[in-house]
Amino acid sequence: MAAIPKSTGMQGGAMAEEAADELTLLAERHLVQPWPMSGSIGAEARGRIEGGEGIYVTDAAGRRLIDGPAGMWCVNAGHRRRELAEVMAAQAMELSYNSPWYTTNAPAALLSGRLAGHAPDGLDHVFYTTGGSSAVETALRFMQFANNVKGRGEKKLIVSRQGAYHGSTYLSASLNGRPRDQDWMDGAGEQVVKLTCPNPFRRPEGVAAVAFCDYLVAEFKDVIETVGAERIGAFVAEPVMASGGVIVPPDGYLRRIRELCRQNDILFIADEVVTAFGRLGHVFASQEVFGLDPDMITFAKGVTSGYFPLGGVMIAGRLLEELRRSNHSEAMFAHGLTYSSHPVGCAVALKNLDLLEDGLLEHARSISGHFQSSLKALEELPLVGEVRGMGLMACVECVADRVSNNPLTLDLEVGKRIDNHCQELGLLVRPLINMCVMSPPLTISTSQIDDMAAILRRGIELTMDDLVREGLWRG
Amino acid sequence: MAAIPKSTGMQGGAMAEEAADELTLLAERHLVQPWPMSGSIGAEARGRIEGGEGIYVTDAAGRRLIDGPAGMWCVNAGHRRRELAEVMAAQAMELSYNSPWYTTNAPAALLSGRLAGHAPDGLDHVFYTTGGSSAVETALRFMQFANNVKGRGEKKLIVSRQGAYHGSTYLSASLNGRPRDQDWMDGAGEQVVKLTCPNPFRRPEGVAAVAFCDYLVAEFKDVIETVGAERIGAFVAEPVMASGGVIVPPDGYLRRIRELCRQNDILFIADEVVTAFGRLGHVFASQEVFGLDPDMITFAKGVTSGYFPLGGVMIAGRLLEELRRSNHSEAMFAHGLTYSSHPVGCAVALKNLDLLEDGLLEHARSISGHFQSSLKALEELPLVGEVRGMGLMACVECVADRVSNNPLTLDLEVGKRIDNHCQELGLLVRPLINMCVMSPPLTISTSQIDDMAAILRRGIELTMDDLVREGLWRG
Repeated sequence: MAAIPKSTGMQGGAMAEEAADELTLLAERHLVQPWPMSGSIGAEARGRIEGGEGIYVTDAAGRRLIDGPAGMWCVNAGHRRRELAEVMAAQAMELSYNSPWYTTNAPAALLSGRLAGHAPDGLDHVFYTTGGSSAVETALRFMQFANNVKGRGEKKLIVSRQGAYHGSTYLSASLNGRPRDQDWMDGAGEQVVKLTCPNPFRRPEGVAAVAFCDYLVAEFKDVIETVGAERIGAFVAEPVMASGGVIVPPDGYLRRIRELCRQNDILFIADEVVTAFGRLGHVFASQEVFGLDPDMITFAKGVTSGYFPLGGVMIAGRLLEELRRSNHSEAMFAHGLTYSSHPVGCAVALKNLDLLEDGLLEHARSISGHFQSSLKALEELPLVGEVRGMGLMACVECVADRVSNNPLTLDLEVGKRIDNHCQELGLLVRPLINMCVMSPPLTISTSQIDDMAAILRRGIELTMDDLVREGLWRG
Repeated sequence: MAAIPKSTGMQGGAMAEEAADELTLLAERHLVQPWPMSGSIGAEARGRIEGGEGIYVTDAAGRRLIDGPAGMWCVNAGHRRRELAEVMAAQAMELSYNSPWYTTNAPAALLSGRLAGHAPDGLDHVFYTTGGSSAVETALRFMQFANNVKGRGEKKLIVSRQGAYHGSTYLSASLNGRPRDQDWMDGAGEQVVKLTCPNPFRRPEGVAAVAFCDYLVAEFKDVIETVGAERIGAFVAEPVMASGGVIVPPDGYLRRIRELCRQNDILFIADEVVTAFGRLGHVFASQEVFGLDPDMITFAKGVTSGYFPLGGVMIAGRLLEELRRSNHSEAMFAHGLTYSSHPVGCAVALKNLDLLEDGLLEHARSISGHFQSSLKALEELPLVGEVRGMGLMACVECVADRVSNNPLTLDLEVGKRIDNHCQELGLLVRPLINMCVMSPPLTISTSQIDDMAAILRRGIELTMDDLVREGLWRG
């Protein structure tokens, strides 16, 4: 292939147009992008982002766009934070890497203490990974290991939910319950039981809103009785399902499920990869928002505001103590990543935590009411079936018919249509089939929220016009 | 728990002794370290590394140590490379994150082109991950997906080898064949077939050295015949087994296995997480060192010299084209990580590749002869059964008895004993049961190699004295 020039500093924004075209071509020729379709795998040009600043990113055409999804639910502190960039370089010049197999480092030690201080009581240990998938793998492999050591190797089934998203490695992906995620993929499905999605907007037929929570709790109880508590090792749940469409469960649901877990010695794993580090206004949301005390909490994304791949699992010290006191002190938890406890990642997370503690959490809490009400107003539009959300995460769900709440058929790709219009108007949307998910950087201001909501409204209006004109929707 | 001070810049080296003690305590109280034993899980203080410079690291006591294993086979360009630290900060100030689901970025595009230029012909696509485990998961999940789409869902067994190490997620870890790695862990073992470790030093009884390669090839042939080629999807191998003890396979082994794979439509996945990016003197070792043309190459570690968690899979364009031409253009490869194609990681990798191309590869090639011969001389010591290696990776394997080559029993922990002595003398060793693995930064000089070998020799001598004195070894 043609020679590719050596790196010259990565100042994408300053590149000549000629170089920019070459970049588009390179990505199309050589990159396999996440979640591709067979028809275009390895031959797909996705739009290129050149730079970021605060809540905005700039694309290759020089357009400034509000980063509606904050990257991928992660740029919580916003783009181009000098403090985070500088701490990366400073830590790399101090210590860029040490092997966690044999040694530790100051940032990992300091961060572990601070995370333990923020986590629910008793969740005082952390195992670091490189992101959400490896965090969930770690939590599940720990459950398997612990039950093997405790002599109850049969107690390892995992309970997940329809609509859930927990990762993209073989075992973590087996927990996913979104449509299409597993059609062509393999997984450890025989180890997973899936419960009904706790989505009040799409309850099972015949279940009244007030009875929905009872229905969900009874279903779990029934599964425990049918399968046997002695076979179930863990229940895993995002407190608010994120990629499943920002599903806020009915009041009391999480606490009641947690109580069933406690009664049946089933570990409750709260997957806070999205909800932690400010998205719901707190470092961890489990206790502060939902009154939950999980046995483990997985986290990633917001922990470094996306600047550095870091994730982890908070683990109850009680679970570790049980192992230390077991009859198998020689049993090895054969698990760990080259980049576990990475000193640069932990240093970035420490600085990011400073930013959260020094005002960003408070700002997120104070602004989330305006964020939710601005988007809620879009329910006036006839294409919008529901706007729901919590904190600084929200979902606009489109429907073909507001009486039956039928979703638009998938081939209409309504989310993508809205995204296309919004990008022209200055907003990146995260399209999810018939939904648009919004989770901007926590630094967003009142007037920026107004801009965002106004663009989204206009994007939906233009999409409605298109659908009517194309004869795809009655209006 | 007690309040932990906010971050103050991470200048570990400059911390007062009081603060340093606090750090040790924090790690012991709050960190779960990789690969812990049940008896000490979550309550273990590992030695703390404060800083790095070139081939050296400094521990919490202020001792300067040669970083024998280059962290974890990864700090190839050495510690404290200002170029790498600066490019991190510069890229973070340009664009710190973009969602690879919908967009791409300049560093990812540029890096994909340069990696394709270095990889064997035809391996012209890359899928980025956050490290080796997720790279192997990606390669395996891609094989499963491709065979599902091609209508041959039965062809998904994976062939691995005893002694192999491929990762720490559920599926990648299922391929591991090292002793003790799976004793207490779960895995997808039913999907994996393991062949004999190609270790000439520990051949099966009765197999002559000259016949060993034939034996290994015949074994694979036999497995294909017994299991059926129509059930085997992939063969996965580190060209030189790394954590299994630096196992250099017999001449011709890899090429002959590759040929069997080709004849039986089995994908050959070269796991180059350790051997790529200079460890054997080339960006990728498959073709340049072994004359191999794999269908996929997994990489991580050296790609960023450990400064940033990045990994990936090079994939043959032919495999992607088959999918694009399939009857299932709508089939979705539901796989991808939040941090796939991370702009900062790719920018670090580009700069690291500059360093490799601008002399480091050449230096590694020119110095490896001295490295290997300096360590080979340790075979004079009666505790040493074999010193083996290739490029800048080597292993000193200790034995109780050089006639039978019996390994020392595990409870002697000879590697750890040698490491303890060497640390006192200024060298970090990577102990592996009865072995010491050496893989220093590629920047190491002739005289630094001499220092390293001299300390290792003294460490082994002191260990021999200890073992004799304690009545554990006859000498």
